[in-house]
Amino acid sequence: MAKRPLILVTNDDGITAPGIRTLISIMNTIGDVVVVAPDSPQSAMGHAITINAILHVEKVTIDDGPQTEYSCSGTPADCVKLGVREILDRKPDLCVSGINHGSNSSVNVIYSGTMSAALEAGIESIPAIGFSLLDYNWNANFEHCKSFVKTIAENVIKNGLPKDVVLNVNIPNITKNEIKGIKVCRQARANWEEKFDKRTNPMGRDYFWLTGEFVNMDKGEDTDEYALANHYISVVPVQFDLTAHHAIQQLNTWEFNS
Amino acid sequence: MAKRPLILVTNDDGITAPGIRTLISIMNTIGDVVVVAPDSPQSAMGHAITINAILHVEKVTIDDGPQTEYSCSGTPADCVKLGVREILDRKPDLCVSGINHGSNSSVNVIYSGTMSAALEAGIESIPAIGFSLLDYNWNANFEHCKSFVKTIAENVIKNGLPKDVVLNVNIPNITKNEIKGIKVCRQARANWEEKFDKRTNPMGRDYFWLTGEFVNMDKGEDTDEYALANHYISVVPVQFDLTAHHAIQQLNTWEFNS
Repeated sequence: MAKRPLILVTNDDGITAPGIRTLISIMNTIGDVVVVAPDSPQSAMGHAITINAILHVEKVTIDDGPQTEYSCSGTPADCVKLGVREILDRKPDLCVSGINHGSNSSVNVIYSGTMSAALEAGIESIPAIGFSLLDYNWNANFEHCKSFVKTIAENVIKNGLPKDVVLNVNIPNITKNEIKGIKVCRQARANWEEKFDKRTNPMGRDYFWLTGEFVNMDKGEDTDEYALANHYISVVPVQFDLTAHHAIQQLNTWEFNS
Repeated sequence: MAKRPLILVTNDDGITAPGIRTLISIMNTIGDVVVVAPDSPQSAMGHAITINAILHVEKVTIDDGPQTEYSCSGTPADCVKLGVREILDRKPDLCVSGINHGSNSSVNVIYSGTMSAALEAGIESIPAIGFSLLDYNWNANFEHCKSFVKTIAENVIKNGLPKDVVLNVNIPNITKNEIKGIKVCRQARANWEEKFDKRTNPMGRDYFWLTGEFVNMDKGEDTDEYALANHYISVVPVQFDLTAHHAIQQLNTWEFNS
């Protein structure tokens, strides 16, 4: 494209998180960047939106890069809605979310604020990508992500995305030399076996912390979990039509209206 | 089945909402009911879970029905996780969520706390249904929903559900006689055209309220929106594998690793 692409950047760890600072620096090499991101961490917010509370937005300067930045009191999905409707004067050519501190592979896509922002952009027919690094630490090293994130973003700008599809990209927490490449995958069938850590507060009232163990019951070699375990970056095309089309015929045999 | 089925009931409008009280009364006629529901409204929470805060759970009595009830400080997905892991002594035969005060048809499934509870149960391999009435009012009339909700729940208990599929049921806000029947549908391709209502607070700071208009751009007669507009109850089979399988081949032509 002749003009530099307009890129909307958001995340769910908050606008000061090292992951989004890395993502902004990469996007600055590709296009004109506007950041609209949460003013505080929003992890595991799923696809929440703010309908019963007010939203604050403030123009902020966080580093000396060329991007324009807005800090928002809402969720990642709110940030995309606000960016598109109120802040940008034209539809962005790309929306990127992340780089998340922690995995959004397999079933985690469902709980992911990072991916909810990408899905929200997708619903608005904006090409969108969520990026996540398999390291939950605030001080995670994002250095090895840079060239791959750039390659994937440039491919999306060049090729576009299939209609109503966004990308869920996960990056293993290994060195750049150890990464074998980028693999297009399907979402593994996995879940969390939660354990609730039950405690008693000083006033004698019980409370719980949610903890759990990730269990991948899917042995397929075409899954994101397999790719990540084998040192590939996983790219899963994700859709927001949740219809289980294959199930419709079977349900039509039921005696609903007898 | 010989034993009475064990039914877990939850919602996102809170444990005292008329919608869940109606759902509990219906489920009491089918099986043994345990309620684990949020202690306050959680609408538009998407698939949020609580990982950075503690959860409180209290056994409560709200009416004189035979059900056992727990009020939980978490989200709908938290309620299902807690119910399955900490409260129930066996896996329930059915999880029902709702009846939501307001539509969860088409793209609303993505933002829906009601459906996030059903999806959470589905991930745990529990047959699950989310029910919603197309009336946002707290004092909505759920009377006409009763026989249809019962029919659908009994069909799920009798037939089971296809693997990794849950049901998204929406009920028009009309009288029982006007309802033409139950239709299995796909999710319509629709979205919200948000408008942010920008205001200034007494201290001179700008803030926004999220408002918007629902726009259905999908003219298909096999969609949930079409069914609802034509006085049918819509039943959409919903999956949590978000992979756009049809897009994988196309993405494999990209120059990711050149």
